[in-house]
Amino acid sequence: MAEEVKLLGLWASPFSCRVELVLKLKGIQYQYIEVDLFNKSPLLLKSNPVHKKIPVLIHNGKPIAESHVILEYIDETWKNNPILPENPYDRAIARFWAKFIDEKIVQTASKFRSANEEEKEQILEELGEQLKVIEKELEGKEFFGGESIGYVDIVAFLLVYWFQVGQEVMQKEWINEEKFPVLCKWMGKLHEIDVFNQCLPPKDKHYAYIRAQIEAAKSASK
Amino acid sequence: MAEEVKLLGLWASPFSCRVELVLKLKGIQYQYIEVDLFNKSPLLLKSNPVHKKIPVLIHNGKPIAESHVILEYIDETWKNNPILPENPYDRAIARFWAKFIDEKIVQTASKFRSANEEEKEQILEELGEQLKVIEKELEGKEFFGGESIGYVDIVAFLLVYWFQVGQEVMQKEWINEEKFPVLCKWMGKLHEIDVFNQCLPPKDKHYAYIRAQIEAAKSASK
Repeated sequence: MAEEVKLLGLWASPFSCRVELVLKLKGIQYQYIEVDLFNKSPLLLKSNPVHKKIPVLIHNGKPIAESHVILEYIDETWKNNPILPENPYDRAIARFWAKFIDEKIVQTASKFRSANEEEKEQILEELGEQLKVIEKELEGKEFFGGESIGYVDIVAFLLVYWFQVGQEVMQKEWINEEKFPVLCKWMGKLHEIDVFNQCLPPKDKHYAYIRAQIEAAKSASK
Repeated sequence: MAEEVKLLGLWASPFSCRVELVLKLKGIQYQYIEVDLFNKSPLLLKSNPVHKKIPVLIHNGKPIAESHVILEYIDETWKNNPILPENPYDRAIARFWAKFIDEKIVQTASKFRSANEEEKEQILEELGEQLKVIEKELEGKEFFGGESIGYVDIVAFLLVYWFQVGQEVMQKEWINEEKFPVLCKWMGKLHEIDVFNQCLPPKDKHYAYIRAQIEAAKSASK
């Protein structure tokens, strides 16, 4: 049977971009379906009835939701270019950091949009401390998993990139080479890899989107 | 080399109990070390410097934190009596539900302690809706994974048990056979298995602990 792989995603979501990145790294052919979150399609509602969110991978008709679950599924199904190491301890460490990124850093960042100016400063400080933790973890290593690109690199790259776009739009500079030399050097290395850049949204569109989000948050708080 | 397995845990935590349950199901010998969260030991701080929380599994000197990460590590290291199915799609489904339980149900429940009476009613309602989702998932099946006990059964059993103890102490009845016939029947089946009961705290001590927690929350809100 020919493999049929569909990805329900959103161009502006680092969570669907991380799935795209892994599909591309493994050379898996897939059909990308952009979802309208304001008008959810029957396919999305049927494929992820519990959360009704993207990303959803549909492999030969079977849907899988939640980006970490999808990444593990892809890695177990297509074994070439593994993103998780083979050794159970190294796998546990990768899962620990991926979880830290999503449950700590993403959670902190998600409070930003609805925060007032004072809270925003606190959130940026907290995010800085959390990024310091991953900066320290990366120290002395080429990539998070050691010498080759893996799970944590993929998850962290997209998030740090999103933060960098955000800070440029807001004309703030809280991630820079002075504060995060290790992370910035590692980001530079990943930007040299074509497939990493191919998964990023077009810059102008991305900037305009974030600007619109900021304006919408300002209007909502008035 | 002889295997050395240590578990840093807390008797009243369903998260360390889930690790104990899997260690026992697989017949792994381990040393249990009770942690004092008010006076964290150098071993805990060294083993989980990021979160400083239990459970932590230390296998041959190497620490692993976060209960889901630990469960996957145990399953990959000791392959007898697997808790995750072999097929990648079934594994993804098990991970999806384990994630739902911890990220939705546990998160909702964690707001209970500091809530006022009105909020508590809302939280119980929300928890009821979330439990309905897993009740529906279990319908028509012996266990979450199908015919044998697996990952989701372990994670869900301990949580539902904790809720049941909580409701008895508070003399509320929001989980019962009328509202949750499928979950209650499944809980009954798991209670027939010795190892599941062996992982539960002594009833009197558990009741007294929850009573003390409720009193402490009441005093704090005065």
